[in-house]
Parts: sequence; structure tokens; C-alpha cells
Amino acid sequence: MRQYQHRLTARADKRGLLEITSEVEGWTRGQSVESGLLTLFIRHTSASLLIQENVSPDVLHDLERFLMRLVPEDEALYRHVEEGPDDMPAHIKGALTQTHLNVPILDGRLALGRYQGVFLFEHRRVPRDREVLLHLVGA
Amino acid sequence: MRQYQHRLTARADKRGLLEITSEVEGWTRGQSVESGLLTLFIRHTSASLLIQENVSPDVLHDLERFLMRLVPEDEALYRHVEEGPDDMPAHIKGALTQTHLNVPILDGRLALGRYQGVFLFEHRRVPRDREVLLHLVGA
Amino acid sequence: MRQYQHRLTARADKRGLLEITSEVEGWTRGQSVESGLLTLFIRHTSASLLIQENVSPDVLHDLERFLMRLVPEDEALYRHVEEGPDDMPAHIKGALTQTHLNVPILDGRLALGRYQGVFLFEHRRVPRDREVLLHLVGA
Repeated sequence: MRQYQHRLTARADKRGLLEITSEVEGWTRGQSVESGLLTLFIRHTSASLLIQENVSPDVLHDLERFLMRLVPEDEALYRHVEEGPDDMPAHIKGALTQTHLNVPILDGRLALGRYQGVFLFEHRRVPRDREVLLHLVGA
Repeated sequence: MRQYQHRLTARADKRGLLEITSEVEGWTRGQSVESGLLTLFIRHTSASLLIQENVSPDVLHDLERFLMRLVPEDEALYRHVEEGPDDMPAHIKGALTQTHLNVPILDGRLALGRYQGVFLFEHRRVPRDREVLLHLVGA
Repeated sequence: MRQYQHRLTARADKRGLLEITSEVEGWTRGQSVESGLLTLFIRHTSASLLIQENVSPDVLHDLERFLMRLVPEDEALYRHVEEGPDDMPAHIKGALTQTHLNVPILDGRLALGRYQGVFLFEHRRVPRDREVLLHLVGA
């Protein structure tokens, strides 16, 4: 068994979900691992990672709207407001979704389900470069 | 160190939590790994995985009811309604719980806590077969 | 590649988030792994794990308050009340956060982002010893 690591940078156009499946698949395929496990880790606390349906843009819209209702950008609710009304809600949305993901590798490919995609979830109003570490172990 | 992979299929009787600890333990024990790490990955976006208390059925009931209140099946809240009123809530509940789990292996056994079980969480009204991939690495 | 395992015990002073980054880093550094992947697993269902901003105590306070509002300690909402009004909410908060975490190891160090810390999240009113298993694989 061997391991491989990679640093991926991605930036969403706007708040919400940006699919990064093809970037992740591209690097993974290049390592020629037949069976294994891929881990993704985001080095931020106001953006997160998620595996979600990647067919309907409405699903992504509805998920983002749900989280906007659940975690209001209302400064009266928070003490931590000095970085803007969207910062504390971003930390909470990050806590409710994922800092890391695992995806098995089968037959040399990411074993995602037919309708699953890998997403960067930007929670700030002004997107920024986000660093995602990839760790692959396998043979 | 070696790795092992397996494909498990499970189907809940109804919406909610189905314990799959014994199926997962059975396969894991068969690989004769003394120390290692087990990963479970579900290949769906309207069902998810969870480690939860496995003693009281009331805990499972209350958790499911909490999520039903948190993510209402009210079509007025969503754009994505063409697959039924329970589909978009299922994607959201999936996003709030887990697509994958890790459990360490110690002394040849899943190192779950005394009251922890591994569950498939079915979010659709009509359950279907769900595919869970198992990846085990260890020695 | 080799693997290492460790059992960490931590106890919060009160309900809420307790940073355990230095304990986790200390053990990890002692294994002299240059590149790899660390997994943390908590053996409980009324406490959980989280990676969160570790600069502002207000962030931790706001996150805890958000979850207290989201998951009220109101016995009328739950069937499972025999272990106290904070027990079922603790299981729900555990389900909405993490039972396990992964952090890559780069250049011999935990590859946490600049503002990321590893936290034990105690959800019970009376904190208790919590057991966290560490699994490290790498070279």
C-alpha cells in the first residue's frame, strides 16, 4: 500500500455549493490506485465540504436556502459579529456540514453513487480561495 | 498493512433508523484484522449513515421526529418538488448527518462505545435497497 | 506505511467545547510520521467532536447557544426523558456534529488550517470523562 497527497485550491463564484468532483477525480485517477480510500480535508472554518446530489441545481439552491433560514444572519443572535453578519453563521453552517470527506476507490475510480457529487460549500458572502487537502491510500 | 473492501446492501422497513452493526461487525471480523480502521460509505443522497445510541428505541424515534420538525415536508419551502414532497427534505437530512463513518479496530473488534451502534438512516417514505461500501485497512 | 493507535481521555469543565488540539498534536508528533492521516473517534453518543475556529471564545459561545436554541431541553418534545432533560438533546446534537474526524499529516505536523482547532463537544450538563481513540496511518 502507498499514500499520496495533494493540495487543491478552489474558489466559488458566490456563496453556495461549487462542484469539485472532476478536479478531485482527475488528480485521483493520475495516481493509478486500483483500490483504496480518498480523504478530503478543508483547511477553513467558514467553508465546508459535502457530498450531495449533482443532477438538479434546484437541490443545491434549496439546501442553501434551508441553511440560510436555519442560521439567520441576524447580529442580535451572536456575540461574534466583528467580522461581519455572515461570519458567525458561516462557522455554524460549517459545524453542521463537513470538514472532511471519505470516498472509497474501486476499480481505479471514485466509488461515488450515480447521483453523488463532491462539493465545496462556501458560506461567506465574498468567496475566497479555499484550500482542500487530498490524501489517498491504496494499492 | 493490508486493505479489504466489501459491498453491503441494506433496506429499512420504513423511514427512520435501521441498525446494521451486526452485519458490519460480521464482515469485519471475517477479515482477521487486529488493529486498523473501518470506513463505511453510502452511495446515496436521500439516505445517510449515523452512529447513535442503540439501547432505547425512543432515542431513535425522537431523533427522527426532531429531523421531521426541522426539515418539514412542505413543498412551499422548496423548488425541487418533482420527486415528491419527501425528496428534498431527504437530501437536507442527508447533508445534516453523514455520508461516511470511520470506526477504529482494536483487538480484532470494532471499537464502538458500549452504547454505540451503526445505523442506516432512511429518509424517503418508501424505503429502497441502499448500498454501503466498507473499506478496512489494518494488520 | 505503519499505523499507530492511542486512547485519549478528556473531560470538559462544563457543557460546551473543550479544545484538545495540543493533546492530539503531542501524541501525533511523538509517532514521527512525516505524511499520513489521523483519525479521531469518540466512544460516546452524548458528546461529539468538531473542528472549529479556535481564536475567538465568542465563536464557541455562539455555536453552543445556537445548538441550545435548535435542540431545546423541553421534555414535551421527547419520549426519551428518563435520563434527564439534557440527554435526548445531547444525542441529537451529537448526530448533528461528528463522531469522528480526519486530519491529514503533512511535513510531520497536523495540517490544520491557521484558525482550526480540534474540540471535544460536551452536550451533557454534568461533564464526564470522554474517551477519544486516535488512529494514525502514514510513513
